[in-house]
Amino acid sequence: MSEIQLVGFDADDTLWRSQDYFDDAQIEFERIVGAYVDLRDARVQERLYEVEKRNIALFGYGVKGMVLSMIEAAVDITGQRIAANDVHRIVELGKSLLRHPVELLPGIREAVESIAADFDVVLITKGDLFHQEAKVRQCGFADLFRRIEIVSEKDNATYARLLEEFELPAQRFVMVGNSLRSDIAPVLELGGWGIHVPYHTTWSHENEATVADDAPRLRRIASAHELPAAVSDLAAQAG
Amino acid sequence: MSEIQLVGFDADDTLWRSQDYFDDAQIEFERIVGAYVDLRDARVQERLYEVEKRNIALFGYGVKGMVLSMIEAAVDITGQRIAANDVHRIVELGKSLLRHPVELLPGIREAVESIAADFDVVLITKGDLFHQEAKVRQCGFADLFRRIEIVSEKDNATYARLLEEFELPAQRFVMVGNSLRSDIAPVLELGGWGIHVPYHTTWSHENEATVADDAPRLRRIASAHELPAAVSDLAAQAG
Repeated sequence: MSEIQLVGFDADDTLWRSQDYFDDAQIEFERIVGAYVDLRDARVQERLYEVEKRNIALFGYGVKGMVLSMIEAAVDITGQRIAANDVHRIVELGKSLLRHPVELLPGIREAVESIAADFDVVLITKGDLFHQEAKVRQCGFADLFRRIEIVSEKDNATYARLLEEFELPAQRFVMVGNSLRSDIAPVLELGGWGIHVPYHTTWSHENEATVADDAPRLRRIASAHELPAAVSDLAAQAG
Repeated sequence: MSEIQLVGFDADDTLWRSQDYFDDAQIEFERIVGAYVDLRDARVQERLYEVEKRNIALFGYGVKGMVLSMIEAAVDITGQRIAANDVHRIVELGKSLLRHPVELLPGIREAVESIAADFDVVLITKGDLFHQEAKVRQCGFADLFRRIEIVSEKDNATYARLLEEFELPAQRFVMVGNSLRSDIAPVLELGGWGIHVPYHTTWSHENEATVADDAPRLRRIASAHELPAAVSDLAAQAG
């Protein structure tokens, strides 16, 4: 018999598209700021990322914090020359991100349904409570998940707390996600299992983790279609 | 024997100061915008509140959403004349709110300790997950609460869901808080009990509820010092 009992799913860029919209917002941000400065000379991307990283400890993750960081960066990058209507365009950028309808990744609904037939499944996502709840409501299959956990950070301490609440040893838990930093590394460190499904674009912050390619309790797959087989495979190995 | 088993506490302006800082931020906002327009002619307060109310459905509650609404309102109120450095001052306003140390209200720690000796206590607060978690960590008595619930809205549906998770009928639950709209009205409607501790200043939004002064399962008290007696009193009535 398999020891695996619970499968956790990340949400952004695992169940539905997210980083694509952030990337689009970044391009629009560069277009706005590009009216004031030469984009390369001003190191716009790097300076925005520096501001975002500095502000994470205060703002946490999510669209609203990103927009505030964009405004702060735009004031700085333009040497305080950015016009009010361009500031307003940045606020509107954020609003359109928050309003964007949920677009599920191909095959993910079927994969979660298939896995939920054999295991308990939970959703573990970080970011803005209000926005994540809205996306969960819209996704159409939230009722498959035994629990929806919206957390402010996905690190060892968070996963340890959740596993304690679930009354489950890490050895019986698999986490599925696109981020090595947030979904895979902490769970492997706690003694659990990981299935890494890279997304075609990833925020720099989420790549700041290294996990050995041959880590024994890790699988890497290319798309949601391979998920049910990967979970079965891990469960057989764990059993 | 008393039927009351669980006492829920609101956090902002019930355990610790909050609205005072928002009020200060509003005064600073008026100072910034007042350099461009006549405050009374421009109906600055009303227009800011209009923008905030319109944006709640998208931003939810909390400092970051408030700052974005302030920036949007400032652009509008100044006829797109607000300068970049003044926009930056508004962002900094938000940061100083997020950095503000937690200031407990007089007597609240002792009141919660006293009540926790006789009843289970939980914390139920709405707003920004990241900021609320930071304040809970700082308050110094988070370990008294059996659960910390940070929710996006405090309405009938939220309280009904929480009571279901607690496996408790509303008749055995008392909610303590400063907001009629968020802490008292929904709990009374579900059949629970309420202790209203008004704060000296309240955001207009939270006053948008009416509860009869003689509602049978409601107590109103003036400060935290009266809390343990009010809970005992309700428990005797419920028993």
